[in-house]
Amino acid sequence: MATLTIPEAIPSPADDCEQLRKAFHGWGTNEKLIISILAHRNAAQRRAIREAYAATYGEDLLKSLDKETTGDFERLVLLWTLDPPERDAWLANEAIRKWRPGNRVLIEIACARSSGELFAARQAYHARYKRSLEEDVAVHTTGDFRKLLVPLVSSYRYEGPEVNATLAKSEAKMLHEKISEKAHNDEDVIRILTTRSKVQLIATLNHYNNEFGNPVNKDLKSDPNDEFLTALRATIKCICCPEKYFEKVIRLAINKMGTDEHALSRVIATRAEVDLKVINEAYYKRNSVPLDRAIAKDTRGDYERMLLALLGQEDA
Amino acid sequence: MATLTIPEAIPSPADDCEQLRKAFHGWGTNEKLIISILAHRNAAQRRAIREAYAATYGEDLLKSLDKETTGDFERLVLLWTLDPPERDAWLANEAIRKWRPGNRVLIEIACARSSGELFAARQAYHARYKRSLEEDVAVHTTGDFRKLLVPLVSSYRYEGPEVNATLAKSEAKMLHEKISEKAHNDEDVIRILTTRSKVQLIATLNHYNNEFGNPVNKDLKSDPNDEFLTALRATIKCICCPEKYFEKVIRLAINKMGTDEHALSRVIATRAEVDLKVINEAYYKRNSVPLDRAIAKDTRGDYERMLLALLGQEDA
Repeated sequence: MATLTIPEAIPSPADDCEQLRKAFHGWGTNEKLIISILAHRNAAQRRAIREAYAATYGEDLLKSLDKETTGDFERLVLLWTLDPPERDAWLANEAIRKWRPGNRVLIEIACARSSGELFAARQAYHARYKRSLEEDVAVHTTGDFRKLLVPLVSSYRYEGPEVNATLAKSEAKMLHEKISEKAHNDEDVIRILTTRSKVQLIATLNHYNNEFGNPVNKDLKSDPNDEFLTALRATIKCICCPEKYFEKVIRLAINKMGTDEHALSRVIATRAEVDLKVINEAYYKRNSVPLDRAIAKDTRGDYERMLLALLGQEDA
Repeated sequence: MATLTIPEAIPSPADDCEQLRKAFHGWGTNEKLIISILAHRNAAQRRAIREAYAATYGEDLLKSLDKETTGDFERLVLLWTLDPPERDAWLANEAIRKWRPGNRVLIEIACARSSGELFAARQAYHARYKRSLEEDVAVHTTGDFRKLLVPLVSSYRYEGPEVNATLAKSEAKMLHEKISEKAHNDEDVIRILTTRSKVQLIATLNHYNNEFGNPVNKDLKSDPNDEFLTALRATIKCICCPEKYFEKVIRLAINKMGTDEHALSRVIATRAEVDLKVINEAYYKRNSVPLDRAIAKDTRGDYERMLLALLGQEDA
């Protein structure tokens, strides 16, 4: 379900490094060469390139990329080149430092990753920021958001296939009662959303829909301006249907007056190796325009080329 | 700082298994033989024995031990033989199922382990109980205890040596204000205790003591019958001075009318490979009686022999 394309014969990390070094040298940077290499290597291959680059040239590849590229292209190529757990730690830290209620990045990292991936991000956060992820989230958020976000980023959900149908029924009822009373920050609402396994939660929310006539996210739209409700809906969407969640993030990023490049780059960089093909299909279904065409219309130059390469365009 | 003694020449796991099998067979069980093997092998060696035993006899060693032993000796030998993360998962699950406010086991596992050990226990909990540790804690606890225990068992504290002195001062002040107002369940009190690194927390509490004239645990004794205050004190003790915490658990277990064998076995089994020597010293300092003599006076038979062997007595 990834869109990433990798050539059949992959050059050695040493060869890739030599080419990258060439791309950095001389008059101007050869962005096309950078894209032709990095946008067609998976996480393990990029890691090997970074290691070989540091060993050969005594500099972190990310530092060279930082010096040699600019703007939206720079941010995308850096995000992409980072190892996924490091990238999540970096994105989470940025989100925490600039935190405002509308920010969805922490929810994405906590809910649209596997339990092991979230834990790897917490380890990378220690290594890079000398603090724990939950510690920084707890300090920089307040009120209901803190109540939701701290357990979300600390969670290590069970991932087995077991579903307890009785529990799904009783917790669907519990959710419905609390949501009807507009007790959206209720302890049990938070507990259910932050600790149950994803398959259990999906069963609960299916039961909610069957029993009470509405998908839970519809009932959580009682006040469209309430940012906490938006956060609850994002949590549920990231858990139950991440492809629809990310389709919407891209749609809003593109449809804005002035593209939201941060959001667009984040989704493409974090999903190209995961499920961007499914997001792509969801996008076409919802917008009747292929995602690559929409992106080509809205972006330019090397940034556009890099996005399309990660989307799997053969010639990019 | 461990008390566990291991012979210089260790038999192969296969030889150990053969001896254990002999100990189980025939008229009665040869407990002394069991002790002479298992109480003198470290976690990796016990794991190798369990694997060899399962491969050779088609039965889990724990099951055989369960069938062939009884009473307090059985519980101790089973606890000891379990791999540490599995043992923590097992103890945590038992504590959750029988949870009452006075139970300290979850606090011990969350606070007197390294971050990696706590995470290993959460992984073992998934494997054994098909749910997450925090999920079960959240369901079986309520009120202030839930507010404290869920983040405690979900924590992955940073473990580097960095201390922020300014932060220590401001958070010491914050703790003092909240404790003076008897707002013991305040969000920030819980946040500080459950997310800060242990060295940072120790710096904060040292500053508290210097600035406000009392150790924080003294100020948290305003109502000796308040179980939540006891839980906060246990949290702080497990983080700041686990050897004193465990010394007290053993002291109370032994001094009771009728020994509290569960507590005694738990501390000996979980600390023999970690810091039982330091706990031993703390015990002697506080009680003017060597711990092994106190235990010998209070326990009997194979249970006594196994405890003393884990305490490092050469002939046990």
